[in-house]
Amino acid sequence: MNIVVAQSGGPTSVINSSLLGVIKAAVASDKIEHVYGSKNGIEGIIYNNLIDLSNILTDENEMLLKQTPSAALGSCRYKLPDFSADSEVYSRITKNLEDNGIKAFFYIGGNDSMDTVAKLSKYMADNNIDIKVMGVPKTVDNDLLITDHTPGFGSAAKFVTTALSEIVCDSEVYDLDSVTIVEIMGRHAGWLTASTCILHNTTAAPHLIYLPETKFDVEKCVSDIKEILKKHRSVIIALSEGVEISKQAVSSSDGFGHVQLGGVGRELEALIKDKVGCKVRTVELNVLQRCSAHINSKTDVEEAVAIGSAAVEAMLSGETGKMMCFKRVSNLPYKVEIVTADASLVANGEKAFPLEWITADHNNVKDDAISYFLPLIDGECEIITDNGLPKHITLK
Amino acid sequence: MNIVVAQSGGPTSVINSSLLGVIKAAVASDKIEHVYGSKNGIEGIIYNNLIDLSNILTDENEMLLKQTPSAALGSCRYKLPDFSADSEVYSRITKNLEDNGIKAFFYIGGNDSMDTVAKLSKYMADNNIDIKVMGVPKTVDNDLLITDHTPGFGSAAKFVTTALSEIVCDSEVYDLDSVTIVEIMGRHAGWLTASTCILHNTTAAPHLIYLPETKFDVEKCVSDIKEILKKHRSVIIALSEGVEISKQAVSSSDGFGHVQLGGVGRELEALIKDKVGCKVRTVELNVLQRCSAHINSKTDVEEAVAIGSAAVEAMLSGETGKMMCFKRVSNLPYKVEIVTADASLVANGEKAFPLEWITADHNNVKDDAISYFLPLIDGECEIITDNGLPKHITLK
Repeated sequence: MNIVVAQSGGPTSVINSSLLGVIKAAVASDKIEHVYGSKNGIEGIIYNNLIDLSNILTDENEMLLKQTPSAALGSCRYKLPDFSADSEVYSRITKNLEDNGIKAFFYIGGNDSMDTVAKLSKYMADNNIDIKVMGVPKTVDNDLLITDHTPGFGSAAKFVTTALSEIVCDSEVYDLDSVTIVEIMGRHAGWLTASTCILHNTTAAPHLIYLPETKFDVEKCVSDIKEILKKHRSVIIALSEGVEISKQAVSSSDGFGHVQLGGVGRELEALIKDKVGCKVRTVELNVLQRCSAHINSKTDVEEAVAIGSAAVEAMLSGETGKMMCFKRVSNLPYKVEIVTADASLVANGEKAFPLEWITADHNNVKDDAISYFLPLIDGECEIITDNGLPKHITLK
Repeated sequence: MNIVVAQSGGPTSVINSSLLGVIKAAVASDKIEHVYGSKNGIEGIIYNNLIDLSNILTDENEMLLKQTPSAALGSCRYKLPDFSADSEVYSRITKNLEDNGIKAFFYIGGNDSMDTVAKLSKYMADNNIDIKVMGVPKTVDNDLLITDHTPGFGSAAKFVTTALSEIVCDSEVYDLDSVTIVEIMGRHAGWLTASTCILHNTTAAPHLIYLPETKFDVEKCVSDIKEILKKHRSVIIALSEGVEISKQAVSSSDGFGHVQLGGVGRELEALIKDKVGCKVRTVELNVLQRCSAHINSKTDVEEAVAIGSAAVEAMLSGETGKMMCFKRVSNLPYKVEIVTADASLVANGEKAFPLEWITADHNNVKDDAISYFLPLIDGECEIITDNGLPKHITLK
């Protein structure tokens, strides 16, 4: 049989490691002949835009897949319609898979992709079509249900915490009161922002951590900052992009008369400037959080490869409609098992950061959470460079 | 004799490597007894806030100084007044230096610091005071006169080009037209932004590079983007913070009356959204450019140490009022010499990026510049980590 693999949703810096894992297991199996890559997620299957990946695995390409951020096959934001609303696309997908002798589809993605896995596997089962559909998780947001954590999160957390530790050094040089706001990704879940609590092992920063799981209190924030400034010249705030500062966006007009809406960091910056009056600056870590493969977590890369391979093995043992999950066995020594869960249970859901790890004042993360995060950022990867820059792979 | 070293101005990720170089050479010399660190630049001398660094050099601390970004001694933006305007501070500095048996002051900084070196050394000479004053260059902007390049620039360029190469991967995943603007530091000089031309070795990106050395042309930019979009779905723009998109005034300024730059990316973003109409996003690399020591250039670190040591050796051979400079001997193999120049010739000046390396259309950098930049970002540093994060040193 042949199989196909695709990548979907927002990229991570190890989504190609999971791609590598799928290819490796496929190449290793004598049951699988060709492993195809679908360009731009499931759209490559719909439009029959496939490339053969069966022979790409050289030692160098394995290294390059591990250090190339973002989806090497391209991504999409395509949402598979319900079968009742549009059955035509289901027929088209089935035809293109069958025409290419493909018996299994592996979708590396987040909760939207698991919706696709759930719908498509149900369609295949309902119609007695022998095509299996498996989900491989990825997201820097770490907000997928059931799995202990998601591939991509550990490397994002390693970048964010490393960058923050360096920003702490940068913020402390001048002998004046200042507030530095670092705006961190995560959508409606606070995991990535919360991971900055790891810094508490060595510094007081971040002095304040705000997550979308709790309500933001302006007055409390201002009084907290004033209190912290009595002991520290430089206050560091880790702020999740999902936090709602106010209902009334702070706006400014640019040179062309357009109103520019700031991110939540700039909203908070304006507020602190107004109510505290010291120097305030905002650092948006932006897409670097999901693409800084030069500082990937070795644990994350290895797990991303392993979970991709495990998906192929699970399919070969007869599973379909499942997402692969990590189940944490222990923190010290760190140990995880890879298990399966129904993709329908993950589809479209979001796992919030646990309230019991948030301080009573809703302004920081308890040290209890450190042992959860620490193993995920562990280990440094060897990187192949060319003229001082990391090399990246291109799949055509 | 004793000596004192201080760090000033905006931090870099190798300013502590130059500090290490000064300490190493001082410790190695039998003419020097104590090497003191002045906290927060020259302010530590004015207020007699010195710490003894003579015994800090363990193997681990040497490694940590190399990988700790930002000024470990703290920084300042203090501008030494002209002697005619305020002689009192000169007397105070002299008294505090003499009280501590200090015969030489090493100032690691940019062009403002070289102004201090020039003024103070002239004062000492004019008054027959046997205290020497030497400048050690640093700035991520690479805009100091006379020296071929500045310590700090290579590491900043390595971070910027690495980040940009990763952003290129991130930008190409979706099958839709998009423009990604990456806003890069450098004040009024385009060096750091121009260094992204290194990527042309492997990709077409950045498709457009805008530097403050030439006038920005809105209509040309819009038509260039439309033209590039015919061939590439994802257009990458490297934009220097010093480019003037519109005449809109920027408000805040620091102690030297320097206008604080930033926000030009969002201005350009609004313009492109309006006139091109595709997806546009801005990534501000922000302070990460000057503090991402986890990806320091090995060449830069080694040169920063060497130029710090060379300043001590030059002082011991009788020099004063000088800034240490790199003189490039050859690109391939890369070879530099360390020489001295009068600090007064560097003070307050700015070295622009050469016009002959900018394309005739003022929208990119010629490949001729690559051989200038390439050696500066070369080599990766070994990093000591603790629990998955780089360790940093604190000097108390």
